[in-house]
Amino acid sequence: MKTSVSCPTLVLDVDRCKRNIQRMAKKAKESKVIFRPHFKTHQSLEIGKWFKEVGVNCITVSSLRMAQYFSEEWDDITVAFPVNLREIDLINDLATKIHLTLLVESVETVQFLNNQLLDKVGCFVKIDTGYHRTGIPVSKIELLDDLLNCISASDKIQFKGFLTHTGHTYSCRSKEEIESIYMVAVNELSGLKKRYLNRFPNLILSFGDTPSCSVLDDFSAFDEIRPGNFVFYDVTQCLIGSCESKDVAVALACPVVAIHKDRNEIVIYGGGIHLSKDRIEENSQLIFGKIVKNSGLKWGDEIDGMFVKSLSQEHGIVYCPERIIDDFNVGDLIYVLPIHSCMTIDLMKKYLTTKNDWVSCMKLEQ
Amino acid sequence: MKTSVSCPTLVLDVDRCKRNIQRMAKKAKESKVIFRPHFKTHQSLEIGKWFKEVGVNCITVSSLRMAQYFSEEWDDITVAFPVNLREIDLINDLATKIHLTLLVESVETVQFLNNQLLDKVGCFVKIDTGYHRTGIPVSKIELLDDLLNCISASDKIQFKGFLTHTGHTYSCRSKEEIESIYMVAVNELSGLKKRYLNRFPNLILSFGDTPSCSVLDDFSAFDEIRPGNFVFYDVTQCLIGSCESKDVAVALACPVVAIHKDRNEIVIYGGGIHLSKDRIEENSQLIFGKIVKNSGLKWGDEIDGMFVKSLSQEHGIVYCPERIIDDFNVGDLIYVLPIHSCMTIDLMKKYLTTKNDWVSCMKLEQ
Repeated sequence: MKTSVSCPTLVLDVDRCKRNIQRMAKKAKESKVIFRPHFKTHQSLEIGKWFKEVGVNCITVSSLRMAQYFSEEWDDITVAFPVNLREIDLINDLATKIHLTLLVESVETVQFLNNQLLDKVGCFVKIDTGYHRTGIPVSKIELLDDLLNCISASDKIQFKGFLTHTGHTYSCRSKEEIESIYMVAVNELSGLKKRYLNRFPNLILSFGDTPSCSVLDDFSAFDEIRPGNFVFYDVTQCLIGSCESKDVAVALACPVVAIHKDRNEIVIYGGGIHLSKDRIEENSQLIFGKIVKNSGLKWGDEIDGMFVKSLSQEHGIVYCPERIIDDFNVGDLIYVLPIHSCMTIDLMKKYLTTKNDWVSCMKLEQ
Repeated sequence: MKTSVSCPTLVLDVDRCKRNIQRMAKKAKESKVIFRPHFKTHQSLEIGKWFKEVGVNCITVSSLRMAQYFSEEWDDITVAFPVNLREIDLINDLATKIHLTLLVESVETVQFLNNQLLDKVGCFVKIDTGYHRTGIPVSKIELLDDLLNCISASDKIQFKGFLTHTGHTYSCRSKEEIESIYMVAVNELSGLKKRYLNRFPNLILSFGDTPSCSVLDDFSAFDEIRPGNFVFYDVTQCLIGSCESKDVAVALACPVVAIHKDRNEIVIYGGGIHLSKDRIEENSQLIFGKIVKNSGLKWGDEIDGMFVKSLSQEHGIVYCPERIIDDFNVGDLIYVLPIHSCMTIDLMKKYLTTKNDWVSCMKLEQ
């Protein structure tokens, strides 16, 4: 037992993480776009500081509570989530403190904000360029006109521009597929810019998901990018082609608690409450995590053919090929690369770095 | 807005929950078995008190940390998880304070415990009667003999008996299927009792999962039952036939943040970080939660044809039939019955009761 890890512990490779941050910051600079990284993946003021080191001064978050947490050190925050009217008090609190930008997609929400806001906020109109989760398709010109009229009529809401999230790149498995989704977004948002630029000469276009921002290089059609997951990456991003396994900057260290050689299984303390139930499918096999070689707190390459095959609340069942199962003993640690790092971090709430320091995250409000 | 709920909030129907507890306690009493409920579902000292009201004085948990949390009010705790050798210090701490019982399934673990224990602990040998997650199959008589010899030789480890968890009942969809799994467990564990009773006259048989304990009535073949999920139930248990929808005692109240009538979708603030990514499949449709009618903090029947169709980190997409979509507005609350209540509770960490009180849970150690 080379480390003091006794329970499932999220280990963060600081070098990999800083390299990921530097690479994306460089890309944004080369495309001359604003880099407004999404902080919902790492949820940590301390990791946020590593972004300041590369010149980042504005961020994206996915909830008002997350904006509240980061407002301690950041004064320009976009909440990339449809406005939750029930949190108007928190919106008003934040608006006095920072430059807060919200996403709107309905006239009702704009009217509500206009009636209830005590201070100024920025707003993007969310555009749906094909992901179909939220936003307005560009074809709904009448609705867009109504919305912009309504925003213009308010002295509390400052129109910032159009924003899209092409989350459907997560189902891509090649650069070509991602490029084709990207080009739709470029064309549709550029069309809007052309249409409304005279009326709103300062409007900007905001774009960004980790697959597009990792696989592509030229974002000059937009004014701002907002990738988030790239800070750590994960098994899903490897599958998409956004990164290689050696770029994944977090792994869950899990104690081995039982070994069943006759069915090539190792039972780890590390379940759905640590990794989340996110999964991928490879060759008709559900996979809940990949296993990497570890020594001390560092880890190396993936172990071929070894993966988490199922998860319950605290148990993980790891499939282990016969050739190596004798290498493992009860009490050892097994390192698992998460399928979806955002979800794993949200569950674990803190990191043990490869430099043996603890890094904290946003806490649940109790 | 009839309630003060502003964010995704786990609402607990106290009457339903207490009814579920009373019903299971009555069943255990009628079968004359020890009722040692699993507390991993609710994770709350306060809800634990409701079990004391029906005479419960011993419990099951799924981790040593959970045992530590509950040791504040409970002095007889079984940790139904293979021993994590890396937590030997915590085991020793707990063993001085409460009657602690562990699960073992390997000679290595017993030897480790014998060398490291400072105080006495109880132990069950975990038997695999077909779930194939952990435990020893009854066919491995030699291993069982070795293990029992090893346990007998230790003056720190007190053999309590054989324990099984028939978790494969979760894939059953009828009482007959559950009965057939139950009968295998009865036969196999009774066989072990017969074989070892002369040598260990006090040995007991411990059994229990929510589907079996809900659907069946006579547990007199065993000495102890350990169901857990029944305290709240969930959509999965409804599907198995363990309960009806009216028995489900927790629902997640989620603000509506956007409505897309043209594709029958309502976007809620309530995602994978609130509900977990557990899902069921019905008619080739993945379902991440069912929707119920709500008024104030109470809720009623399921709304036919309405369900959570996908989840991302904070977003939930609810499918809403055309006939009722006009009944919903941005800012409303939608109540979601979770697919797997254990996972949802682990994420939410607190409850708002239908009596408008907050109930707290075990916290993450930060």
